[in-house]
Amino acid sequence: MRRELRIGIAGLGTVGAGVLRLLEAHAELIAERAGRSLRVVAVSARDQSKDRGVDLSEAHWFADASALAEAPDVDLVLELIGGSEGVAKDLVERSLAAGKPVITANKALMAHHGSELARRAEAAGVALAYEAAVAGGVPVIKALREGLAANRISRVYGILNGTSNFILTSMRETGREFGEVLGEAQALGYAEADPSFDVDGIDTAHKLAILTGLAFGCEIDFDGVYVEGIREISALDIEYANELGYRIKLLGLSRATDGGVEQRVHPCMVALDAPIASIEGVFNAVVADGDFVGSIMAEGQGAGAGPTASAVVADLIDIARGGGLATFAVPAAALRRLPSLPMERHEGSYYLRLMVVDRPGVIADIAAALRDEDISVEAMLQRGRAPGESVPVVITTHETREANMTRALERIIQIKAVLEPPRMIRIEAL
Amino acid sequence: MRRELRIGIAGLGTVGAGVLRLLEAHAELIAERAGRSLRVVAVSARDQSKDRGVDLSEAHWFADASALAEAPDVDLVLELIGGSEGVAKDLVERSLAAGKPVITANKALMAHHGSELARRAEAAGVALAYEAAVAGGVPVIKALREGLAANRISRVYGILNGTSNFILTSMRETGREFGEVLGEAQALGYAEADPSFDVDGIDTAHKLAILTGLAFGCEIDFDGVYVEGIREISALDIEYANELGYRIKLLGLSRATDGGVEQRVHPCMVALDAPIASIEGVFNAVVADGDFVGSIMAEGQGAGAGPTASAVVADLIDIARGGGLATFAVPAAALRRLPSLPMERHEGSYYLRLMVVDRPGVIADIAAALRDEDISVEAMLQRGRAPGESVPVVITTHETREANMTRALERIIQIKAVLEPPRMIRIEAL
Repeated sequence: MRRELRIGIAGLGTVGAGVLRLLEAHAELIAERAGRSLRVVAVSARDQSKDRGVDLSEAHWFADASALAEAPDVDLVLELIGGSEGVAKDLVERSLAAGKPVITANKALMAHHGSELARRAEAAGVALAYEAAVAGGVPVIKALREGLAANRISRVYGILNGTSNFILTSMRETGREFGEVLGEAQALGYAEADPSFDVDGIDTAHKLAILTGLAFGCEIDFDGVYVEGIREISALDIEYANELGYRIKLLGLSRATDGGVEQRVHPCMVALDAPIASIEGVFNAVVADGDFVGSIMAEGQGAGAGPTASAVVADLIDIARGGGLATFAVPAAALRRLPSLPMERHEGSYYLRLMVVDRPGVIADIAAALRDEDISVEAMLQRGRAPGESVPVVITTHETREANMTRALERIIQIKAVLEPPRMIRIEAL
Repeated sequence: MRRELRIGIAGLGTVGAGVLRLLEAHAELIAERAGRSLRVVAVSARDQSKDRGVDLSEAHWFADASALAEAPDVDLVLELIGGSEGVAKDLVERSLAAGKPVITANKALMAHHGSELARRAEAAGVALAYEAAVAGGVPVIKALREGLAANRISRVYGILNGTSNFILTSMRETGREFGEVLGEAQALGYAEADPSFDVDGIDTAHKLAILTGLAFGCEIDFDGVYVEGIREISALDIEYANELGYRIKLLGLSRATDGGVEQRVHPCMVALDAPIASIEGVFNAVVADGDFVGSIMAEGQGAGAGPTASAVVADLIDIARGGGLATFAVPAAALRRLPSLPMERHEGSYYLRLMVVDRPGVIADIAAALRDEDISVEAMLQRGRAPGESVPVVITTHETREANMTRALERIIQIKAVLEPPRMIRIEAL
């Protein structure tokens, strides 16, 4: 058995404490699989006095997390602080520069600086691992980097944010509106006091940018991700989705095309029989389409202390065994710069819901606006009659270009009988 | 970049030809990920003249597959012949003895001799990889061995045979009987002329035995797997399952208990909202329950040239990179000998369907037989009346022991008004 691996952990919040508990609970099992024992020799966290349920008396405490990078008895650094800049970034950069492998659960950091950090890790000849950054305990990074390594991946997508999926599931099950369900999710601890990272799609975009780089072997381009959240989804749209045979899901989706990479995060209508439609509540799932393997889906808990610790320690075991894989499956120098396609070039089908005054001629005006943009209507629903009053009109379209849809909506909004900004949800063929 | 890796392939059937095509199609991508180029230098197959769609003029042909083991220019051997004994076993043993890593897609071989082969691989200091042996292209071996390596796994189960799942799905969709659907599956090429490996559960048992060893770190015990196939499933039972809120699936399931390992393959009634219930047609899925990660499910195509080749080449890339993992995640000497529990000790709920003469007193006799074995009835259905004629009676029970159920059924079968052997399907709480 090889020499023990001495670990420094920065950040002892939910995930850090979970990692400590896991390392303690399964010390023997982990040593057997890693081929050596692992020991936490140094930690850094704001509050030294807090009881985390594990004995840290043997570990050296550092007030300055970055100092772990240079601590002579630390062989490997776990960065569990979070945030794309500041201490977390500094610690990772300094650790790599000091020749120490780094494991991080930090999706924001990897989404903003992943390619550059991969170059630094490679230059230092050490591993940079980040399984916990995407889909929590579900080993999707490993699956893409190694399990599907023989494939050319054409598309990767997933439900990557448990909070948003919980809210959408709960809205559907209870028929309530977004604001009310969000409040409940906050009370249950499933949503943060400031929920914008989750419900506005930013967290999903971070994870998608990482998956994109890995799946297509390209530089990470977080700024190239189109992002739209779920705040505008209403109970009425969820009801119509059910009726039309769809589920509304917040997806992150990337597709490799000849012209570049399409990266987008937005609510989607997905057919009920698509495997991802059945992923409910706080669960996450990732689907990858490979040219030899076909479609592979992996699902599980995407957050929480246990699942995230499971991913962090899986990385630890890999590195302890001597695994020194390229961060994004290929040498950092081989990562291609692929242009991210602008959203107006997206092509797909659309769901529109308009609130209109129920009077003759309105539908004709709307239909004309769509026709003039070459948008072909697949179905139009107007239930019941309420002459002179506001009624919903739902339209689904055949495939068209986003730019055309944007122009058509600009024109529709000008129609006097259209009372509110139209709600538009993209229909995703999966 | 390291020296090229020279490969010898034994067996050029569907899978072997798929591997050759994949290696040719993605030579560059594979070399980039493997850090070296891969070249097929030797092959062995029965028919040298057959066109496999790839150029093999540079490869040395061996009439005797086992000779690949000693060929001086072969660095690594792919065993794609199949069968638990004979040439395949001989080739693998000789290759390991010669210090060559081996990749196999052979579930029968691994199920019967996996532990012993793991010891031989370890003694020789080379890898023995078998991702393609379970669930085709879905990287479940990697997920269990590495992705969930930090967890204690309590249960692993899956739909591991696409043919059986296709037949069950098709029976449900069309309302037809097993024999008819099997014939159609054979005509479509989804089932073999001799379908017994698939529909009698043996193929599933092979894969389950491998998953058990890996998940629980124990010696493989194929003989300890209880096996029952799907031939006895009737259209009527599928109809009742729907009505009761279940799908009938052929599952392989292993559970670690204090007394040993429960390994069983049989048709199960699973609740419609269990993720595995939605796996349809030829798809495979594996679920693992870990103590930190929770439940993880992976699904995809479990067979076919492309998916299987994807798994074989993923193993190739791993080994080419220098991965030398323990075959079953832990050193072979650490594999525990865990007793396989006999089926009579299984505890669970049951579905029974009896064909009885519709006359007073019959239900009372049946109920008494169950009561005398301490079996508590959850529900009893008898639809319609047909005095004096044969009618189905369906009973679901609360949890009981298999031994008690067996005795109750022996008694029920003696009741004169019970016209056919009762149909019993286990209800699985997932």
